[in-house]
Amino acid sequence: MTFVKPFDILNEAKGKEVVIELKNNEVYSGSLEAFDVHLNVALKNAKMISSDSEKEVGTVLIRGDALITIKNL
Amino acid sequence: MTFVKPFDILNEAKGKEVVIELKNNEVYSGSLEAFDVHLNVALKNAKMISSDSEKEVGTVLIRGDALITIKNL
Amino acid sequence: MTFVKPFDILNEAKGKEVVIELKNNEVYSGSLEAFDVHLNVALKNAKMISSDSEKEVGTVLIRGDALITIKNL
Amino acid sequence: MTFVKPFDILNEAKGKEVVIELKNNEVYSGSLEAFDVHLNVALKNAKMISSDSEKEVGTVLIRGDALITIKNL
Amino acid sequence: MTFVKPFDILNEAKGKEVVIELKNNEVYSGSLEAFDVHLNVALKNAKMISSDSEKEVGTVLIRGDALITIKNL
Amino acid sequence: MTFVKPFDILNEAKGKEVVIELKNNEVYSGSLEAFDVHLNVALKNAKMISSDSEKEVGTVLIRGDALITIKNL
Amino acid sequence: MTFVKPFDILNEAKGKEVVIELKNNEVYSGSLEAFDVHLNVALKNAKMISSDSEKEVGTVLIRGDALITIKNL
Repeated sequence: MTFVKPFDILNEAKGKEVVIELKNNEVYSGSLEAFDVHLNVALKNAKMISSDSEKEVGTVLIRGDALITIKNL
Repeated sequence: MTFVKPFDILNEAKGKEVVIELKNNEVYSGSLEAFDVHLNVALKNAKMISSDSEKEVGTVLIRGDALITIKNL
Repeated sequence: MTFVKPFDILNEAKGKEVVIELKNNEVYSGSLEAFDVHLNVALKNAKMISSDSEKEVGTVLIRGDALITIKNL
Repeated sequence: MTFVKPFDILNEAKGKEVVIELKNNEVYSGSLEAFDVHLNVALKNAKMISSDSEKEVGTVLIRGDALITIKNL
Repeated sequence: MTFVKPFDILNEAKGKEVVIELKNNEVYSGSLEAFDVHLNVALKNAKMISSDSEKEVGTVLIRGDALITIKNL
Repeated sequence: MTFVKPFDILNEAKGKEVVIELKNNEVYSGSLEAFDVHLNVALKNAKMISSDSEKEVGTVLIRGDALITIKNL
Repeated sequence: MTFVKPFDILNEAKGKEVVIELKNNEVYSGSLEAFDVHLNVALKNAKMISSDSEKEVGTVLIRGDALITIKNL
């Protein structure tokens, strides 16, 4: 079995639309623009998603320790 | 007694179906695709499991500090 | 694909008006004056924004571990 | 007095049945299979114990920062 | 654009009256006497400020991870 | 004045009966058997103390980041 | 301006009576006996202070990450 790492998987998702769930229950979607070893993440054309609406927020940087999951990888 | 480490046990579980319990009470199951020393974990064909339903979420990366246990090792 | 990092994106936003959301639900806007690897951030001409008012707070330093997102990048 | 360290005590408990109390109030018992310097711990033949029942969970890895105490050492 | 850092801005504020907001909602003001890379801060002639009163507390050391913002820089 | 460190004081208390208060409000007493730089502590002949009872728990390892104070030094 | 650090100020307070406020709202006073870079602190002849009483607790070690402020420096 190859030694794929979580960051390899993130790296392949660059430019893709991902969904990020935060510890404060907020959810953001957007194009995965950048990330680092702390899981600080930048999304482009991001939207903040709630149960009944979406709000466009442009480019957003999310602090790594504030996020729980990154989906749609 | 041999000096087996928790990461050795995780390593043997690569490709197996595991269950991950998060600090926010969410539970994910999926094929263990990748992990690193921070316990950042990537699951493939993952499902988010609640008491009465399951939701398929594809490939998901879970931040290490958000998880409590990994079961089915 | 180039290897842009979250801090590269922050760096390009220096001097721009950004919006910072904190873990205690406070929101600050202001000119991005400085930041470091911990995401400690200094804003100039900052305002603390609530749902129905704004309060000018001059130059403010925000501790990195207190923030969730930086928007308007 | 000798300079015994907490990890020496854990090391002597390898293969023994221990009880682990987590910050989320869950309690696990099981055979101490492995641990590391972060107190990430793997238990074999583990059970999740509540006040009125036990649930077998096989081999489980517990993230170090999620646990409070390890008993029965 | 010069590479000013948050600590450069703090450094210029030494001896100035600053306002520090803590994670437990307490607010202190005082003369910025000292700080370090963890944002541990010492204030001289400090006051603890509540909505309807002020209490003089002399020289106080505030642990870095307990603070959210430093204002009046 | 000599440069005594908190760990020097702990070291002198090895084998003594100490009382440890945890962040989850639990209190343990026992003979201080071992500790390390993270303040992971092992107590021998430990008791978990509540307002109206004591429960013997044998040898217990307490994770450093779970404790607030060590008394009876 | 000289480069006084928070730990220089603490160092000058060794042997003095200080007051320490904890994140769990407890307050201790006592003679500052020892501290280290994590702000682990040992107090001698310490008292735990509540609004209407004081309880003598002898020598106490307080874990650095449990404290918010040190006063009476």
